Amino acid sequence: MMDVTSDLRLALLQCESLPLDVPANLARLDHFAAQAAAAGAHLLVTPEMFLTGYNIGGPAAAVLAEHPDGPRAQAVAAIARQHQIAIVFGHPEHDGDGAVFNAAQCVDAQGQTLGRYRKTHLFGELDRGMFRPGPGDEPLFDLHGWRLGLLICYDVEFPENTRRLALQAADLVVVPTANMEGFDFVAQHLVPTRAYENQMFVAYANFCGSEGDLAYNGLSCVAAPDGAGLVQAGRDATLLLADVTRAGLAAGRALNSHLAMFAKPR
Amino acid sequence: MMDVTSDLRLALLQCESLPLDVPANLARLDHFAAQAAAAGAHLLVTPEMFLTGYNIGGPAAAVLAEHPDGPRAQAVAAIARQHQIAIVFGHPEHDGDGAVFNAAQCVDAQGQTLGRYRKTHLFGELDRGMFRPGPGDEPLFDLHGWRLGLLICYDVEFPENTRRLALQAADLVVVPTANMEGFDFVAQHLVPTRAYENQMFVAYANFCGSEGDLAYNGLSCVAAPDGAGLVQAGRDATLLLADVTRAGLAAGRALNSHLAMFAKPR
Repeated sequence: MMDVTSDLRLALLQCESLPLDVPANLARLDHFAAQAAAAGAHLLVTPEMFLTGYNIGGPAAAVLAEHPDGPRAQAVAAIARQHQIAIVFGHPEHDGDGAVFNAAQCVDAQGQTLGRYRKTHLFGELDRGMFRPGPGDEPLFDLHGWRLGLLICYDVEFPENTRRLALQAADLVVVPTANMEGFDFVAQHLVPTRAYENQMFVAYANFCGSEGDLAYNGLSCVAAPDGAGLVQAGRDATLLLADVTRAGLAAGRALNSHLAMFAKPR
Repeated sequence: MMDVTSDLRLALLQCESLPLDVPANLARLDHFAAQAAAAGAHLLVTPEMFLTGYNIGGPAAAVLAEHPDGPRAQAVAAIARQHQIAIVFGHPEHDGDGAVFNAAQCVDAQGQTLGRYRKTHLFGELDRGMFRPGPGDEPLFDLHGWRLGLLICYDVEFPENTRRLALQAADLVVVPTANMEGFDFVAQHLVPTRAYENQMFVAYANFCGSEGDLAYNGLSCVAAPDGAGLVQAGRDATLLLADVTRAGLAAGRALNSHLAMFAKPR
């Protein structure tokens, strides 16, 4: 028997982006944190740069950039404490030195920061016009006995990034994203492949609708390591619930042995 | 306008394995080489260890192992010359030093060896009981203006292997395989992901039916770099035809830019 108390219920928020309206986004976060907690979720995952919107341009990103422990992070921590749920959120961060990063952070149900991440693989002119790439050396962190890693959007399309986390024993990689029409392949094939080839779960939370000239494609998903257990949203706004289980992890690791090859002398 | 004379028509042989009957397999190869050439194919790809069968065990693999330029390779070269078609074939190879490898080789329409490869990532006790892993350092080769690399079966499930070939400018990776029931995910999601994340084509030629205690799952496929252009067989024996085109390659490279990240200073 597996210890079911160590399973983890995820809630992925798939929603439209509200660019530049931080108070409205914090209010939405409060609403969906309550809803997710009521549904028994341990962790609420939001899309890329949820707190500020993604399609905001370099000047706005620079103005809105905060320190990792700044007022927005503290507001999210208060929401997490209030509803007793861990939250992965994203927004522009600065390091106090002029550089602005596309960042994600995980706070636990007590509002404590568990892990931080800065996007390493910037996508296109919009991303590169707003951000400096992060170093990709942030440590993994634990949540309810699961070892978690963070990536952001385009990062997950590079197998090197998920492999790096898998070789540090990640059980679950959480990926806020802002993926667009024309790239359905990523959620339908590539993200499940990352889970399969690394014997881990991958949670991919996307926007839907449009934001300026960007049209998002939804399809938020949680992919399982056995290749079969994909939970996937459609095109519309939803709070997607998915359980990642120790039994599912064990089944994936019994079926596949890719990571075991790395443990052997080569 | 693309130069359509540089497009390449592939024929993937999906068939049952005939273990230990090399003459019958050479006769089949002759038959399907004629059929593929008549259909305009430039390259015929056969499943893993097609010439000897895959599920033959260590002692038989050792007895049947030949030098890369041995009689079986010469018989295949003669078939290629006769039908004026390039062929990728596989069988056990030895290096004259006692070591036996799971090998694939490509000969051109004049019967000249273009490229060789020895499987690096052995799958399970059967594979490890027959073979020593290859070094994975074989050079790529050119066919009708396309740069080709070879992998075998389980090798393609490791993103590191296709990435290595992509960084050496592979346009097409050819993968003889012997994939089994329970692993449909590989042909349906993982192989297309390899094409997509590397901006190249991947051809994956599998057995169908059963061989001893192994049940193969067919689903041979040619995956395109745009994620949409998948040509895929069903469960039954077939000669699967697919054109890999310069236009398709250009479309994939216009849509996706993963490899471009490797060209930049990091």
